[in-house]
Amino acid sequence: MSTDLKPKFLKVYNTLKSELINDPSFEFDDDSRQWIEKMLDYNVPGGKLNRGLSVVDSYQLLKGEELTDDEVFLASTLGWCIEWLQAYFLVLDDIMDASHTRRGQPCWFRLPKVGMIAANDGILLRNHVPRILKKHFRGKPYYVDLVDLFNEVEFQTASGQMIDLITTLVGEKDLSKYSLSIHRRIVQYKTAYYSFYLPVACALLMFGEDLEKHVEVKNVLVEMGTYFQVQDDYLDCFGAPEVIGKIGTDIEDFKCSWLVVKALELANEGQKKVLHENYGKKDPSSVAIVKELYNTLNLQGVFEDYENTSYNKLITSIEGHPSKAVQAPILMFFVDGVSNHHKSVLVVNMKETYHGKYGAEQRRTP
Amino acid sequence: MSTDLKPKFLKVYNTLKSELINDPSFEFDDDSRQWIEKMLDYNVPGGKLNRGLSVVDSYQLLKGEELTDDEVFLASTLGWCIEWLQAYFLVLDDIMDASHTRRGQPCWFRLPKVGMIAANDGILLRNHVPRILKKHFRGKPYYVDLVDLFNEVEFQTASGQMIDLITTLVGEKDLSKYSLSIHRRIVQYKTAYYSFYLPVACALLMFGEDLEKHVEVKNVLVEMGTYFQVQDDYLDCFGAPEVIGKIGTDIEDFKCSWLVVKALELANEGQKKVLHENYGKKDPSSVAIVKELYNTLNLQGVFEDYENTSYNKLITSIEGHPSKAVQAPILMFFVDGVSNHHKSVLVVNMKETYHGKYGAEQRRTP
Repeated sequence: MSTDLKPKFLKVYNTLKSELINDPSFEFDDDSRQWIEKMLDYNVPGGKLNRGLSVVDSYQLLKGEELTDDEVFLASTLGWCIEWLQAYFLVLDDIMDASHTRRGQPCWFRLPKVGMIAANDGILLRNHVPRILKKHFRGKPYYVDLVDLFNEVEFQTASGQMIDLITTLVGEKDLSKYSLSIHRRIVQYKTAYYSFYLPVACALLMFGEDLEKHVEVKNVLVEMGTYFQVQDDYLDCFGAPEVIGKIGTDIEDFKCSWLVVKALELANEGQKKVLHENYGKKDPSSVAIVKELYNTLNLQGVFEDYENTSYNKLITSIEGHPSKAVQAPILMFFVDGVSNHHKSVLVVNMKETYHGKYGAEQRRTP
Repeated sequence: MSTDLKPKFLKVYNTLKSELINDPSFEFDDDSRQWIEKMLDYNVPGGKLNRGLSVVDSYQLLKGEELTDDEVFLASTLGWCIEWLQAYFLVLDDIMDASHTRRGQPCWFRLPKVGMIAANDGILLRNHVPRILKKHFRGKPYYVDLVDLFNEVEFQTASGQMIDLITTLVGEKDLSKYSLSIHRRIVQYKTAYYSFYLPVACALLMFGEDLEKHVEVKNVLVEMGTYFQVQDDYLDCFGAPEVIGKIGTDIEDFKCSWLVVKALELANEGQKKVLHENYGKKDPSSVAIVKELYNTLNLQGVFEDYENTSYNKLITSIEGHPSKAVQAPILMFFVDGVSNHHKSVLVVNMKETYHGKYGAEQRRTP
């Protein structure tokens, strides 16, 4: 992102916040204004802001020349809507997962003054998105499409979360419910749509494009999102904690991780039995047995093959559509993020954080 | 409601459910279809359906002649959207309030298989509303207004819930935070907009009306909603349990009830001290002291005065706008519900349930 756009992006947050606490559809008083302001400051701007910033980046790439102040403001506003959506997911996910920390601070619902009020705060965060869209886009020709887009992507995300939750529920009784196909569906719906497709789709709408004509962009971006999540799953087990910034617990937590579904696919009957007996157990010896099995099955090598194949497939997909001038620059820009990430994964002891330019910030708590 | 419309209304639920579990925006499998179906059947259709049915009633009154099958279907669909919205509020409210039962069965999140997945189910219920609207209204000239209306009313409801939650939080330390003005704001935003205004607004939009021209309708309906909630508060303490169908616990629960704010307004310093010391305590002797004080302050008489004044004000408001032919029949229909309710309240030992035609179903658990 060009250096002058990020400060402008950050400034837009304060404008939006101030509009929301003065929304004429509700009679605010000092207590409620203060509550909302604190809640927003605690939950919205503290992430890496990749999703939000990438709306501005994408729009910049589409236009190809300097943006007007108005364009920067509108693209940033759409970016912040995605950050608001993300905050809403995180606040409620943390309650559902009984998590403790998020972005280096206690989860919002863990604050003694907040508690279960956090669930309603999550709802409010979600409600802010259409308030912001209405205020700034109501007169635009693409307003309806924008509202429909946010609704559809939120529906997909919540549906992805649902299959993740119910799969874990039945998986705990029967590990064989976990499969590559269900893993792909969880990742695609729960993460890829809102993290990868939504920012670009916002930029396309603002640029006057018809989303129905850009189905290929959607497919490539969803594929990228999946690729990132597989890396995330891989690093949860094989990444150095000092690089990935956390100690992975997917094995203990019975997560439907790419590693366990790949292991189930490759294991013989005896190895499957070992997995069934040890996956999802808290004690370190069970975790060690699972990791040892992952090594026996050479999942590191399998992952590297997957990574290379996916990367090449993405490049081919993008280069295969050179006629679509609108899409190519954005996708190459994203894949460039993937590429940097790709390199950093292969050199896991590098000092940089593993999340590349567009690394998916995990929704579920470590 | 004319007798043939209710069965038609009920049938529409099955159509909508079947469309939702086959929504092409998500790849459903058997497990996820079954989950959604169970979740919907458990949470959506089990209420009194007053809000939903009143969309059809209102539209019928606006049109004045027999509805076509298509009109019945569309008005019922909007009615069900309100029932879906209500289900979403209830599922999440029950989690926030740690409630045990709802509509005569355990709260959804209390089912052992469900637990915290209920929070995501609440989100899904909310996401179903725009899915339904898009499927059936996307081509209508009033589609954008409909989507904006649902968004605005949901925002108002969540904001009302917020002030209720934070007022109770500070009220528990300082009862004097409770006032008639905050009580009115809570009731108006948390209940009146979505229970009273939303059904009529849906019917008006479907009839081709511009909502901006019907601000007076909104005001009267919100006033009716407030009037109902005050009755609800009154009956929580003074209604016979066999009539109201529950044992009220507003005093124990530190609720910002109309009775306590009225008592605070009328009490002398000594009586205020008694309230501060006994309100919100679980033990029966404290509850008895509060009730005794309510009697000393003649809150039953004060309530009857309020009731008569409100009722006459509503009638005057409606009759004062005879020129607005569109509004009058609906409002008189609603006030007729209020009127029946009014009578039933004054004769609390009557056998009928206290909720009149349009009695507000309480969002918070008894």
